[in-house]
Amino acid sequence: MAAALSPAASLQLRPYPTLRLLSLYSRASTTLRTSHSLPPPFRSLPRRRCLCTVITGALYSGERTKRELVEKPRGELGERVGEFRRRLKIAEIKGKPDEGLGRVGQSIAVMGWVRTLRVQSSVTFMEVNDGSCLSNMQCVLGSEVEGYDQVESGSVSTGASVWVQGEVVPSQGSKQKVELKVKKIVLLGKSDPSYPIQKKRVSKEFLRTKAHLRPRTNTFGAVARVRNALAFATHKFFQENGFVWVSSPIITASDCEGAGEQFCVTTLIPSSGETTDTPLDTIPKTNNGLIDWSQDFFGKPAFLTVSGQLNGETYATALSDIYTFGPTFRAENSNTSRHLAEFWMIEPELAFADLDDDMACATAYLQYVVRHILDNCKEDMEFFNTWIEKGIIDRLSNVAEKDFVQLTYTDAVELLLKAKKKFEFPVKWGCDLQSEHERYITEEAFGGCPVVVRDYPKDIKAFYMRQNDDGKTVAAMDMLVPRVGELIGGSQREERLDYLEARLDSLNLNKDSYWWYLDLRRYGSVPHAGFGLGFERLVQFATGIDNIRDAIPFPRTPGSAEF
Amino acid sequence: MAAALSPAASLQLRPYPTLRLLSLYSRASTTLRTSHSLPPPFRSLPRRRCLCTVITGALYSGERTKRELVEKPRGELGERVGEFRRRLKIAEIKGKPDEGLGRVGQSIAVMGWVRTLRVQSSVTFMEVNDGSCLSNMQCVLGSEVEGYDQVESGSVSTGASVWVQGEVVPSQGSKQKVELKVKKIVLLGKSDPSYPIQKKRVSKEFLRTKAHLRPRTNTFGAVARVRNALAFATHKFFQENGFVWVSSPIITASDCEGAGEQFCVTTLIPSSGETTDTPLDTIPKTNNGLIDWSQDFFGKPAFLTVSGQLNGETYATALSDIYTFGPTFRAENSNTSRHLAEFWMIEPELAFADLDDDMACATAYLQYVVRHILDNCKEDMEFFNTWIEKGIIDRLSNVAEKDFVQLTYTDAVELLLKAKKKFEFPVKWGCDLQSEHERYITEEAFGGCPVVVRDYPKDIKAFYMRQNDDGKTVAAMDMLVPRVGELIGGSQREERLDYLEARLDSLNLNKDSYWWYLDLRRYGSVPHAGFGLGFERLVQFATGIDNIRDAIPFPRTPGSAEF
Repeated sequence: MAAALSPAASLQLRPYPTLRLLSLYSRASTTLRTSHSLPPPFRSLPRRRCLCTVITGALYSGERTKRELVEKPRGELGERVGEFRRRLKIAEIKGKPDEGLGRVGQSIAVMGWVRTLRVQSSVTFMEVNDGSCLSNMQCVLGSEVEGYDQVESGSVSTGASVWVQGEVVPSQGSKQKVELKVKKIVLLGKSDPSYPIQKKRVSKEFLRTKAHLRPRTNTFGAVARVRNALAFATHKFFQENGFVWVSSPIITASDCEGAGEQFCVTTLIPSSGETTDTPLDTIPKTNNGLIDWSQDFFGKPAFLTVSGQLNGETYATALSDIYTFGPTFRAENSNTSRHLAEFWMIEPELAFADLDDDMACATAYLQYVVRHILDNCKEDMEFFNTWIEKGIIDRLSNVAEKDFVQLTYTDAVELLLKAKKKFEFPVKWGCDLQSEHERYITEEAFGGCPVVVRDYPKDIKAFYMRQNDDGKTVAAMDMLVPRVGELIGGSQREERLDYLEARLDSLNLNKDSYWWYLDLRRYGSVPHAGFGLGFERLVQFATGIDNIRDAIPFPRTPGSAEF
Repeated sequence: MAAALSPAASLQLRPYPTLRLLSLYSRASTTLRTSHSLPPPFRSLPRRRCLCTVITGALYSGERTKRELVEKPRGELGERVGEFRRRLKIAEIKGKPDEGLGRVGQSIAVMGWVRTLRVQSSVTFMEVNDGSCLSNMQCVLGSEVEGYDQVESGSVSTGASVWVQGEVVPSQGSKQKVELKVKKIVLLGKSDPSYPIQKKRVSKEFLRTKAHLRPRTNTFGAVARVRNALAFATHKFFQENGFVWVSSPIITASDCEGAGEQFCVTTLIPSSGETTDTPLDTIPKTNNGLIDWSQDFFGKPAFLTVSGQLNGETYATALSDIYTFGPTFRAENSNTSRHLAEFWMIEPELAFADLDDDMACATAYLQYVVRHILDNCKEDMEFFNTWIEKGIIDRLSNVAEKDFVQLTYTDAVELLLKAKKKFEFPVKWGCDLQSEHERYITEEAFGGCPVVVRDYPKDIKAFYMRQNDDGKTVAAMDMLVPRVGELIGGSQREERLDYLEARLDSLNLNKDSYWWYLDLRRYGSVPHAGFGLGFERLVQFATGIDNIRDAIPFPRTPGSAEF
């Protein structure tokens, strides 16, 4: 094996110099390799000459910090992979507390998409956005700018992508502290005149048909960034508190889901995206004319999950505290602004915990993520405050700071019955609270303070919730928040095997299907509790966005699964 | 509306005292409310008397920090939700650098599951684990311990859940620095003698049939914690570098996926979990005997996503840098230790970036997450090093510290052709590298150093990869790592509209299906690049776990979607 001379052995000792030993392998590759001898950034773009000046410009600006060329003698096998460096984003200039003033006098280069272009007699104003923040970089161009012919010829238009390099200067305008006095501009990609997102405001309905372009608007860019911040804050909160993220399964053939309508997942129907002409008789059937599930991928009917909770409980009763954060599905034919067929859920589960722990955790969680976006997404939140929901910052600050109130379902019903308000739906002990009731409680009765309603009648709640001593209610809780109504629903779980089995019996559910769920009560059962939170509802709550279809990048609703 | 007296108005002024105004509502609820007047923790458990002493014990131990009872005069409507506090977990004692020595002399209480029990003549040793770390808390019990009768009677057995309270003392044994000298024990949940996870080692195959209990074993507990750490490190890496997490859609009716076999998602088949007797003729059909897709939920055939990349590109070309982290699906009938039908993918996409940026990002990412688990999961990694894969810590340290090597596909082929090794599959320019080739390159030729192979023949790569100037290869890259082979695959994307359309034509793909993907090249196209990483492969790489079914909580494979 000639180990002493093998690349492996030599590389382990001293990675670099010994690479030369490999040169014996490298002859055949030189032809191809020369095509990589240009400086790295965008070296093989079609407009190479153009871009080489870009690169040079970028490098001497001292800002576009690309890695150096790896110093490697020609003709050897294997180069080092370069260092990963962030390019300069607009958020790093304008997203700072000084809004960029600290960079005045610096020579920088930015890349992004042209939002607007105002050509005046002596000067052209161009707003460039790169999506890293709401703010555009205002670029000021005179006719002396290198590459200005592309502006004059109309090639640089709304929607085009550009590289601009120049000096940061204090801005004359009142809208921003700094602007870029451009020295050089390069058009990266033209924008066809049919570009649907021009300056004039377009409706959100229209933009849903352009879901691939809508993140280039102020609103959807801001929603995407705040959604991201909420997701990361979610992970941070649970990780800081010792919870383990568990991926609950998406496809399940388990018989014990059953909350809501489910999508069937199958390979019995030939999966060709090319044609929709699928003869029904290609589906395998038994002699009795039944679908032959034994030939399906999983050997039996399988569905998309409606909740990861039951699976989450298996990990909570092993690792103590866990949370799931993944997609869930409902095949409900509800064409409303509050429902999606595909949405993301966060479902924490706490072991050795009761309903009080559960409510306390849900409260701390919500306050944490709200505080996180108020602190970290100031510009986007100001935007929502001005354009989407006036007062949202106050509403959220309230949530982050105020104590949350809890009251029993029975008290809530009492409160609603005494309310000086006409409701569309009647209020009666034993009936579920409607959205109008929930919003009255949190918005009016408690003045915008989130309210946790607990101890609901057992007949309107799920089988797994823990029965209270009164025999009539269960240790369930719903957190109600202004504007959205129910944002979080949770419960202490029934950990007593005999109670749980009796409950399954009384609901005529098949205990055999729940064998593994019951096992958790058979082997070292512990008090435990958890809650669930629809992530898009949280995004709505935190941004003021009205329609839930605008709170997720690619909404799935009845009749619509485009993109 | 009597606004001045309404709860809303008063609460806004001074939340607490004014709550008394609400007392007029509260009469009817007192009966139910008294059942909540016990101290909070586990107040409504069946063994209440028992647990009240537990609570008292916990409280005076000064460790089980439950929130105080909310001081609230009786008969008012609405209590404050308590403060969320973490209970003491074993990781907080034994997971510290001093392995608990700093707590010697402290009175504490822990809760968990009994792993083993050794009853000796004068003393009983009980190992309790709560899943927060690998270590058990060794508990030493004499016959004077309160609640010892439950040990004597055999109620406390392997798998049972217990609450134990006592004093931290230095341990006599060599396996741990401290142990708990128990004063009081309470059995929370018995374990039926049929408990399948007894001390004797059981096979991983057997444990797959007990996926709901296997996280209670050392191996699967450790895998779950390291998996969690890898996921969080993934989010941290991308967030720290300004990437936005985007949730790409799971269900898609878009025609431009097509990589690999897809699962069909439908509501045409009645979704009853109760019975598998589904007559074929319940599926709606047209007059021609075709499946009537117009009656399906989305109005046309819909599938589970095989990749979020194309959707990710839409957000990258608006927000600059994004990443997805979500489930993806392949309906391939591969019953191997390397394939899952449902797995999690991480797919970053970088705007204004080329293949060099892509490789640099993938390298930095992998080194970051590996360093994260080496730093943060020491105990679990030591466990893997001893019991799962000897030398894994060295292997991973190498990855975290060494420079990664890149070489072209052409060079790689040359290297393989000159290798003094017989391969099962032939090596030939134009053919894809097989796992044996990939492992030879990274494990032998480069001695355990990850290798990035780039510039593959275009005919073996996807349509969207950017064509190199040679006309024969594309700007693709695969990162090969020891043991696993290909861990990451990525490419620079074809951003030139004419090239992309020509490529679709030459592959006989329908351009209309790709309208929105092509739009990204029509309106401000930018050079961009990205990569994909199967998260379970990463878990295997980082833990040494052989079979991918053991790297995810609930594996889905042909014929198997239990739990």
